[in-house]
Amino acid sequence: MKNHRLTSAVLVLYFLTLVQQSSAQSDSLMLNKIYREELLNGKAYSWLYELTTKIGGRLSGSPQAAQAVEFAKRTMTDVGADSVWLQEVWVPHWVRGEKETGKIIDTKGNEQEVPVCALGMSVATPKNGITAQVIEVHDFDELKKLGAEKIKGKIVFYNHPFDQTFVNTFDAYGEAGIYRYIGASEAARYGAVASIVRSMSTSDNDYPHTGAQGYNDSLPKIPCAAISTNGANLLSRILKAGSGTKFFLKQNCQLLDSVLSYNVIGEIKGTEHPEEIIVVGGHLDSWETGKGANDDGAGVVQSIEVFRLMKELHIKPKRTIRAVAFMNEENGLRGGKKYAALAEKNHEKTIVAIESDAGGFTPQGFGLNMKEEEKTKVKRWKDLFLPYEIWHWDGDGDGADISPLTRNGKVPGIGLQVDSQRYFEIHHAATDVFENVNKRELHLGAAAMTSLVYLLSFYGM
Amino acid sequence: MKNHRLTSAVLVLYFLTLVQQSSAQSDSLMLNKIYREELLNGKAYSWLYELTTKIGGRLSGSPQAAQAVEFAKRTMTDVGADSVWLQEVWVPHWVRGEKETGKIIDTKGNEQEVPVCALGMSVATPKNGITAQVIEVHDFDELKKLGAEKIKGKIVFYNHPFDQTFVNTFDAYGEAGIYRYIGASEAARYGAVASIVRSMSTSDNDYPHTGAQGYNDSLPKIPCAAISTNGANLLSRILKAGSGTKFFLKQNCQLLDSVLSYNVIGEIKGTEHPEEIIVVGGHLDSWETGKGANDDGAGVVQSIEVFRLMKELHIKPKRTIRAVAFMNEENGLRGGKKYAALAEKNHEKTIVAIESDAGGFTPQGFGLNMKEEEKTKVKRWKDLFLPYEIWHWDGDGDGADISPLTRNGKVPGIGLQVDSQRYFEIHHAATDVFENVNKRELHLGAAAMTSLVYLLSFYGM
Repeated sequence: MKNHRLTSAVLVLYFLTLVQQSSAQSDSLMLNKIYREELLNGKAYSWLYELTTKIGGRLSGSPQAAQAVEFAKRTMTDVGADSVWLQEVWVPHWVRGEKETGKIIDTKGNEQEVPVCALGMSVATPKNGITAQVIEVHDFDELKKLGAEKIKGKIVFYNHPFDQTFVNTFDAYGEAGIYRYIGASEAARYGAVASIVRSMSTSDNDYPHTGAQGYNDSLPKIPCAAISTNGANLLSRILKAGSGTKFFLKQNCQLLDSVLSYNVIGEIKGTEHPEEIIVVGGHLDSWETGKGANDDGAGVVQSIEVFRLMKELHIKPKRTIRAVAFMNEENGLRGGKKYAALAEKNHEKTIVAIESDAGGFTPQGFGLNMKEEEKTKVKRWKDLFLPYEIWHWDGDGDGADISPLTRNGKVPGIGLQVDSQRYFEIHHAATDVFENVNKRELHLGAAAMTSLVYLLSFYGM
Repeated sequence: MKNHRLTSAVLVLYFLTLVQQSSAQSDSLMLNKIYREELLNGKAYSWLYELTTKIGGRLSGSPQAAQAVEFAKRTMTDVGADSVWLQEVWVPHWVRGEKETGKIIDTKGNEQEVPVCALGMSVATPKNGITAQVIEVHDFDELKKLGAEKIKGKIVFYNHPFDQTFVNTFDAYGEAGIYRYIGASEAARYGAVASIVRSMSTSDNDYPHTGAQGYNDSLPKIPCAAISTNGANLLSRILKAGSGTKFFLKQNCQLLDSVLSYNVIGEIKGTEHPEEIIVVGGHLDSWETGKGANDDGAGVVQSIEVFRLMKELHIKPKRTIRAVAFMNEENGLRGGKKYAALAEKNHEKTIVAIESDAGGFTPQGFGLNMKEEEKTKVKRWKDLFLPYEIWHWDGDGDGADISPLTRNGKVPGIGLQVDSQRYFEIHHAATDVFENVNKRELHLGAAAMTSLVYLLSFYGM
């Protein structure tokens, strides 16, 4: 009896192993199909061409953002989503106005123009600009030490270097970004009249990199701008030569009334567990200094490609897949917040959320923002991905748009992790254009995402 | 006694483990120093600027190749190599002559110019060009089936697609390259008067990609050229519309007398095992259609950077390190052959040879062309490299220049493996220029090579 039981157990185990092997084999074949189809016939690149060159930069509230909503809706419909709908989102409507002017005025009165651009949500300078003595700091400690006595009435210049020694450039961004985000208010705390921040860039170039900043409501709102890295180097050199150096800044950006905009959502209904939802997305809005190609047109077209590949390969997912083109990641995250709020209100069962928002570069892996036991589940697929050079599963970054969903471990979050070497050359700058996206790299990312969505849709979390 | 022996054995093991741990720790610190120094102060990028923009394309036998020899000698000396010398190499001197002309002439006589360039070592067309009916084939089987009856007097157009479904683009190159290399002679076998080959490129573009071809001496030598991928697509469409379509090709390239050139060799003598030599190199010559930035200026400057980093960080290698800038990889491999022949003649003990010749892109790992037990030795360092996103150790490609050394397992060979997605957009084309090399990517490759050379120089093979 004992032996018989043992034999049965062995047989069951053997059978299970066979089933596992055969499903691993069929999964391996399906990933191969997905990659083949995408590398031969991928559409993401041509969609990105349309989104970035026909529509262009798409800041929330702009006519381009509205066109992008139409683009996403139409494209999701064209690829055969079961349903496509818009989700209302009120977004801030900040406009840059005329091209900004920045000038260094040395102690002899010589003027030298340098590339600057207003930070997102900044107030304008007075109509004819503002001129004040400029004072360079490298971090908040230096600022604090200088204090009101040295700062009052001046323009604070945050020249915090982007740390080149991080291999993953997002680590450097994580560290330097704070000077852009809260620098203006911190300078205002000591009476500064404006602030300029060294662009968050890995390279020395002439393109200022904009990005969001958020005022501390208890402090005066002063105008703030980014200066190109070459401009920052020049300003720093001139300051070393003469401490009375002044800076002239002129920008007439303004915050208009909020505008009604939309998240665009497409869905393929699951055949067996339609109530279990897998979210895959990127954000539709972008800064208008460039064309929002890597940030984050790439993520949007890759997410729509997930649908196209599913339909083209006749994959009928067991769980529901939602592609979401989020609105307003750059200056408010209103789309991500709205999506999460409605998902909660409607008691939706989101089993996992995936975002691509690190640029359309060669995919390396997936950041896993989830519990350890959930990570173990996802990582059991590692070997399936190795032939596609997807090797990195130990990061934990997911994505800003899905963060209201995944915060506090509510929903497991996944971020497509890509080669980060070139991202901060072009991020939020005039160089974030279609030409700086490589077709194969973009399509490999779409195939990686689709492969993971396929596995999640069949096996769940 | 038994127990005592056991205790001793345990103590010895414990001690060895401590030593191993501490050396692994100090190795880890040294890799960190190498990467920091390279990412902050790397010189490879500025050297590459000089090599590619001040000197330019450097085909063997050209004045630019001679200038490149001087550049490499001077730069190796400047970074503090113990000795630098030139190794004589007689190289073929093929010159392209005037810009080539290619025209499609449809059945109505309409002419349309398309971008073409002579393949390396091709003969010229008659002075006023050659016009003949063009016949498209996709592979040698099709060619053979058509036979002399259909081929004689015609221009064979090899339209073999570059297989996009390989994730590593070198696999597609390995497969398609044969049509470029022996296509002319195979067409001549059936009486073709010329041949044109679809460029080996991952993208549809207007740049023809040149490259070596080798005639079969027992067959007539016919002129052969590459046509851009867009040109190939157009020609194929026009051929579908009318089978009498002709092609006009004009090129006046020629092979001149051989020229005396050089491998450039720098050396840092090992402190403990000076007789054990580690070769690290790239090739100095390049096609002159572009500027030889990724192929292979990158490999040359990365190899010299190994020396700079060693000197800057006061690393005194136990084994001898030789940086070699090989001559004539592109159309003859005379430099690699000469180096290996002299190493054998002088009974040198080369313990390993490393090459970087896959472009200055983000490094992924090292291809290991060596015995299994040697692979195991090298792979014990895998974990040290993971923080630097070096993960791939299962390829086996090393490099053409070191192949005469490593052939038949004589010397273990290692190739720097990099992200391959962008290489065959620019390979051998006018787009292989400095602007298509990213500083951080290039420097990460130099740091990876230096780290491996450091470990090999201390621990041997």
